[in-house]
Amino acid sequence: MTENVDVLIENASEVVTLQGSKVPRKKEEMNELAVIKNASIAIKDGKIIDVGKCNGYSAKRVIDASGKTVVPGFVDPHTHLVFSGSREFELELKLKGFSYTQIKEMGGGIGYTVKRTREASVEELMKEALKRLDTMLAYGTTTCEAKSGYGLNIETEIKILEAYNRLNKKHPVDIVPTFLGAHAVPEEYKGREEEYVDLVVNEMIPVVTKKNLARFCDVFCEKGFFTREQSKRILLEGKKHGLIPKIHADELTNCGGAQLASEVEAVSADHLLEVSEEGISEMAKKGVIAVILPATVFSLMKKDYAPARELIDANVPVALATDLNPNCYTENMQFVIQLACFYMKMTPAEALTASTINAAHAIGEADRAGSIEVGKQADVLILDCPSHKFIPYHLGVNLVGTVLKKGRVVFQV
Amino acid sequence: MTENVDVLIENASEVVTLQGSKVPRKKEEMNELAVIKNASIAIKDGKIIDVGKCNGYSAKRVIDASGKTVVPGFVDPHTHLVFSGSREFELELKLKGFSYTQIKEMGGGIGYTVKRTREASVEELMKEALKRLDTMLAYGTTTCEAKSGYGLNIETEIKILEAYNRLNKKHPVDIVPTFLGAHAVPEEYKGREEEYVDLVVNEMIPVVTKKNLARFCDVFCEKGFFTREQSKRILLEGKKHGLIPKIHADELTNCGGAQLASEVEAVSADHLLEVSEEGISEMAKKGVIAVILPATVFSLMKKDYAPARELIDANVPVALATDLNPNCYTENMQFVIQLACFYMKMTPAEALTASTINAAHAIGEADRAGSIEVGKQADVLILDCPSHKFIPYHLGVNLVGTVLKKGRVVFQV
Repeated sequence: MTENVDVLIENASEVVTLQGSKVPRKKEEMNELAVIKNASIAIKDGKIIDVGKCNGYSAKRVIDASGKTVVPGFVDPHTHLVFSGSREFELELKLKGFSYTQIKEMGGGIGYTVKRTREASVEELMKEALKRLDTMLAYGTTTCEAKSGYGLNIETEIKILEAYNRLNKKHPVDIVPTFLGAHAVPEEYKGREEEYVDLVVNEMIPVVTKKNLARFCDVFCEKGFFTREQSKRILLEGKKHGLIPKIHADELTNCGGAQLASEVEAVSADHLLEVSEEGISEMAKKGVIAVILPATVFSLMKKDYAPARELIDANVPVALATDLNPNCYTENMQFVIQLACFYMKMTPAEALTASTINAAHAIGEADRAGSIEVGKQADVLILDCPSHKFIPYHLGVNLVGTVLKKGRVVFQV
Repeated sequence: MTENVDVLIENASEVVTLQGSKVPRKKEEMNELAVIKNASIAIKDGKIIDVGKCNGYSAKRVIDASGKTVVPGFVDPHTHLVFSGSREFELELKLKGFSYTQIKEMGGGIGYTVKRTREASVEELMKEALKRLDTMLAYGTTTCEAKSGYGLNIETEIKILEAYNRLNKKHPVDIVPTFLGAHAVPEEYKGREEEYVDLVVNEMIPVVTKKNLARFCDVFCEKGFFTREQSKRILLEGKKHGLIPKIHADELTNCGGAQLASEVEAVSADHLLEVSEEGISEMAKKGVIAVILPATVFSLMKKDYAPARELIDANVPVALATDLNPNCYTENMQFVIQLACFYMKMTPAEALTASTINAAHAIGEADRAGSIEVGKQADVLILDCPSHKFIPYHLGVNLVGTVLKKGRVVFQV
């Protein structure tokens, strides 16, 4: 007697299951991948129905994974997926020593992207984003969070969030949308910052939530962007309307962002380069997830990365993300894992936990993504290497051979 | 009247030609890419016969490159392509704080690779190397240098160099072989280092050159490896037998490697993390090319890279390479370019010059590779981006869409 299934992935050298993570993994748990050697996976109706020996199945499609490693699809919990245009021209300015502010004054920076994004139609935005989503998938990301924030007016913020809605239906990658109207104060509100906060709170949040366009509300709490008080006001208003708080915290300076995240019970505090000991301790108490973005640090040509080891040691669950945006242009979580291991001293296992199950927890998707276990979506990568340790070891190279999303092969080399 | 050609690459957004580089490019010349906008390339009998407007040709195969960037195939002038086994298990030991010496004592390090390589048959070595060559090609490397040095006895050093010979006939990537018998003193010669140098000088070099198995002779001049005097003896003996000197210089400590390279008129001095001002000045005087290996620095988890800007400013021609080896496992020159720009402050144009024409000069291949100009081999990459500036800008992602080697399409996404 055999049971019919849709797909059987057979004889993988190892299957990294990350089973049994109802809550984000912390400390030593981040090293426990629940690897099964020489294992198979049975998939039916888009879900995983068995992992391990998998005897007694007959499958429409059998994939031989011998000599290969199977891991959960990467979850990228912090991206700015929709924006128009590119900023490759800024690299030479950065190399010449121009500061972010000077580049902004020369017509670059976030202002450039906001202008281009406001001018673009939703179809144009989608066309650019679809290409990025294809790249994500080819590098193994099967679920991502994606923020608005290059609109900075009601019309464009809505346009971006509606693009996410439509992209979600059109592309295999699952997209979890975040409202980030408070990404920066737009040019036209210069000197009237409080009025822009009023706009976000009184007009944007009600419209976004009425249209049901976002799951999270994020804010860039930073010197020259939004103060801790302004950030708090925005996040609490979002919360009142059902948006779960997230926060760009302590990236360039220490503004108490981590403490604010704890205070408003944010699901995550992101960046954290300049987080204080007190901030770390508050995050640990409240179980706020640290979403760390090493590719951003690389893009900024900095040598000092976020204190991942201190966060892990202090019992804060850590996740990793790309921060995909025009100033940190990468869709590749494998590159992020490499930076995490080589510059933040995370172990290969910690970095993989941070890029799958903990990342899924950081965007409320852990019930269906982030691990390979019975009942979850069959979001699975077959990597062209005999162990997960090759993800950081084999530098600069895409190890993804096959990507399955909800049990369907959506990418294959 | 039209002329028949084999391939016509049409309407590229830009063609980076790097034309007219009879000698390695220095200083400001490294920024001069000789880009032609909206250009085409005509290819016949494996060679480039026209670049620019290219009117009046009819081609067997026409490739539309509109919106894309065409650059010369990358030349990787420093690899240790043939070795057996991998050392992914060492990453966790490094993260736990074990030193290179401790890892070596635990059975890792170069000793591990030498043991595996000695045990492997030439067919096994070729099988592993062919996979690496396929990856190189997919990431745009069409010519590479490749060293022996994981044999450290006559039999295995010859086996490796013979593998290069056979690989060269079997795989599209052109391989330029280097004899590196003096990569390290093998275990069995511990305490008898001078005897090992005698072996290299009196037995290995004569056999290697008699069999015509290498073009260059390299040595690891470093504390705990080979002294400056030993290195000099080996390089001069190689030179006497027709091998052009190269040198692993000033990587971990300053041993005067750059000065030695100048003294023996080496074509290149490689690594150079610890090079002195005097060493730089000597290199500039003698025109020794600096081959810089930033992925190695990344692999070693160091923050301080080689002084690329100082070298360029001092009139030393700079090339870039992967250093592909079990302790720096990457075949991807785009990753190297990204490290060069973001951590060594090279401009996108300098990094591209360093990865093509200057790299070709560093391995004596500039007469046929490293630029797109009439008469050269048609080794050409079509990149999926509108300008070469995307190579460092679009982080962690393979931009190569199509690779032509000697006019033949050998890789296509």
